[in-house]
Amino acid sequence: MKKHISCNLPQTLTDSLKAHFGNRFSVSEAIRLHHGKDESSHPPMPPDAVIFATSNEDVAFALACCNSHQIPVIAYGAGTSLEGHILAPQGGVCINLSAMNKVLQIHAEDMDVTVQCGVTRKQLNQCLNGTGLFFPIDPGADASLGGMAATRASGTNAVRYGTMRENVLGMTVILADGRILKTGGRARKSSAGYDLTRLMVGSEGTLGIIAELTLRLHPLPESIASAVATFPSIADAVNTVIQTIQLGVPVARMELLDALTISALNQYSKTTLREEPTLFFEFHGSPGGVQEQTTQIAELAKINRGNDFEWANRPEDRSRLWQARHDALWAAISLKPGSRGLSTDVCVPISRLADCIAETMADIATVKLPSPIVGHVGDGNFHVVLLIDPNDTDENHRAHAFAARLAERAIRMEGTCTGEHGVGLGKREYLIPEHGIVAIDVMRTIKATLDPHNILNPGKILPPT
Amino acid sequence: MKKHISCNLPQTLTDSLKAHFGNRFSVSEAIRLHHGKDESSHPPMPPDAVIFATSNEDVAFALACCNSHQIPVIAYGAGTSLEGHILAPQGGVCINLSAMNKVLQIHAEDMDVTVQCGVTRKQLNQCLNGTGLFFPIDPGADASLGGMAATRASGTNAVRYGTMRENVLGMTVILADGRILKTGGRARKSSAGYDLTRLMVGSEGTLGIIAELTLRLHPLPESIASAVATFPSIADAVNTVIQTIQLGVPVARMELLDALTISALNQYSKTTLREEPTLFFEFHGSPGGVQEQTTQIAELAKINRGNDFEWANRPEDRSRLWQARHDALWAAISLKPGSRGLSTDVCVPISRLADCIAETMADIATVKLPSPIVGHVGDGNFHVVLLIDPNDTDENHRAHAFAARLAERAIRMEGTCTGEHGVGLGKREYLIPEHGIVAIDVMRTIKATLDPHNILNPGKILPPT
Repeated sequence: MKKHISCNLPQTLTDSLKAHFGNRFSVSEAIRLHHGKDESSHPPMPPDAVIFATSNEDVAFALACCNSHQIPVIAYGAGTSLEGHILAPQGGVCINLSAMNKVLQIHAEDMDVTVQCGVTRKQLNQCLNGTGLFFPIDPGADASLGGMAATRASGTNAVRYGTMRENVLGMTVILADGRILKTGGRARKSSAGYDLTRLMVGSEGTLGIIAELTLRLHPLPESIASAVATFPSIADAVNTVIQTIQLGVPVARMELLDALTISALNQYSKTTLREEPTLFFEFHGSPGGVQEQTTQIAELAKINRGNDFEWANRPEDRSRLWQARHDALWAAISLKPGSRGLSTDVCVPISRLADCIAETMADIATVKLPSPIVGHVGDGNFHVVLLIDPNDTDENHRAHAFAARLAERAIRMEGTCTGEHGVGLGKREYLIPEHGIVAIDVMRTIKATLDPHNILNPGKILPPT
Repeated sequence: MKKHISCNLPQTLTDSLKAHFGNRFSVSEAIRLHHGKDESSHPPMPPDAVIFATSNEDVAFALACCNSHQIPVIAYGAGTSLEGHILAPQGGVCINLSAMNKVLQIHAEDMDVTVQCGVTRKQLNQCLNGTGLFFPIDPGADASLGGMAATRASGTNAVRYGTMRENVLGMTVILADGRILKTGGRARKSSAGYDLTRLMVGSEGTLGIIAELTLRLHPLPESIASAVATFPSIADAVNTVIQTIQLGVPVARMELLDALTISALNQYSKTTLREEPTLFFEFHGSPGGVQEQTTQIAELAKINRGNDFEWANRPEDRSRLWQARHDALWAAISLKPGSRGLSTDVCVPISRLADCIAETMADIATVKLPSPIVGHVGDGNFHVVLLIDPNDTDENHRAHAFAARLAERAIRMEGTCTGEHGVGLGKREYLIPEHGIVAIDVMRTIKATLDPHNILNPGKILPPT
């Protein structure tokens, strides 16, 4: 494999890192390229070198070295981010954390678990087998839990169980200068000082690198039921969702897929779903509770002209249904072979959801690109996936202009430009319209204080000055 | 009324404040004294002057003036804090926010509300009458919502509905230099940048003054039931609680009161409760759901040697029950006329709760002070109220030594020194043992960055260097 030291790393730094990490330090081009792209449509930007960390001390050592040389450091978990979070626009050192994948302590009696950052959500749930507990946050991809905390991820279950914000109790975070910070704790609540846990959740590796997490677990529901309902229009489906939330029905999942997405899934996942606007539901609770919820929702769906529920009661049918939901991005991309998917991620107050989707559908009609819609609509969050030929400048331009209009529309409706993907490289320009300049100034001040040399994932989140 | 300008405020500052606020600026001794004490056992420390603010711009003006003079500013809501939060150990200007008490916007369809900081929780719930919604956080006192956010308050309903951390969606915060910061938004979730909302929640007026809040509301439960169960020992009651949490039963309230507290309540609130270790329960849900919960809990109570539930089903009986619970602090103090109550506030992982309470009861036996125990035990949070003669140095010393041992015990059990009251003046020394020095250094850095002249509630939260 071709090796060449990038000129961007000072020799003294590479010497120190090589001495500490040995063959866990690499500048091979293939490895750098692999670490320079995520699942977004951003073009790859490889780091100058990659380190494979196995301990908190490794991360602390690498950070202290890079900080004294003022060289960028980028944390890499599973590579599943959707806004270029792990790209290296300024080069630097990527720290691959995937080998930090131990489940450290399961406290079943307290319903919490402490894990290293590289543990993935599926791995965690496998480890929890037999405890009667599970970790509900499910962004689709089998992301690392450190990465999920860093982007404040959520996904299909958030409508019932909250996001990473609500489910991280405490963390071990390595600061820019290599100091090891402990945040939070294992008590269910605390008023003891500033909430550094929540400051780090969603900071996308720009304030510190998350090395360990204590997460809240939830009892496995006694009873689970899944159902599919189709509607004559997206508006009918969305109205069903809005009424469900307003009635306070504690659905566990409530996902919208438009007819185009369903058609893509039928091809990609070999499903035989009716190609109409569709809601996927999941209900958790006691048998009586689940029965109550399903009766309520079936009535709401009927009022909104929905077809009868189709049930997926056997675990394997449920798995197939939710796997299909998770395949939606790849299914969408397969609609246009060779395309890249530009995924938008707005989230609006639930009362504005129908308007926001209606305006967005009218806008899609002008863009003339295949643009399926899927969404965690119970939270007011939906994604339009614009399928772009990466070599077609005009398609790229149209898609980005659409994404900008959609973000502005959501912000105008008191929503956010990103419900769950994070800011990364792609959403920075919307932060000032969304939060105002004072908030961005405060964020910049905090960043400058905790990372004075701007080595932690530079160029992400904060809009360029 | 006697008036005298304190020598601690520069004349140019008092001139500016008088010019802006007119008779809403006061240096009267009575008003200063009134603003120099809360409901804690800390001796009064009055500010040099008091301002009665009526708008965000008032607060911004006062802060900008005080900042340029480097004079402390202390926010005052309802005066119900329990750790000396509103005391003025370094003098300065107190801003009374109680006239900023407008409910600005109720978005019933999105289940959120925007209020000025001086609105109290009872006032808010009165305003919500007829919407089918309520704001659940209930710390007992009719505190202001700004103060509740500032201390990350919780109380009896937190086991089901979370704390202020989970229920504040966004805020308007006035920064030390008078800039007006908007945080968060109305979307149910967002990954758009650093979580400034959660940074401000629990910051006790040391990073900014909360002027407006957008809060999450919840649907009024279709059915509510309250019950009382007594147990032969505290351990039996606590085991019932632990098993309830571990089974995932979604109780809305689950409060422990020891026999001494019940006896105090029977005298103070004219109740006729059995004077034994007691749990107060409340169940929220559909009629079927409530029935299911109560059946489960009644079984658990029986397994733990509890007596049969006594029901409080009529709204007036429920109100009387919870009013009695809220009166517990005053009832306790009435056990020893002329005493002050020193209230502890530890919170531990639920698996350690029985041990922590058992060790604490053994310790109480050595202190030889009436020390009733009450607690939001579903969260692992309990209070010992030590009744002290304020003029008895030895009693004070014994009580504080006990409180220190209890905080250390909770921290040793991976808990926190304060579950909901906040740090204020009284818990500062426990922050380093609880969080470690790196966390405290990070908190100090953030404080110094956002409040470089240390004018915002100085002397609170952060341990002295």
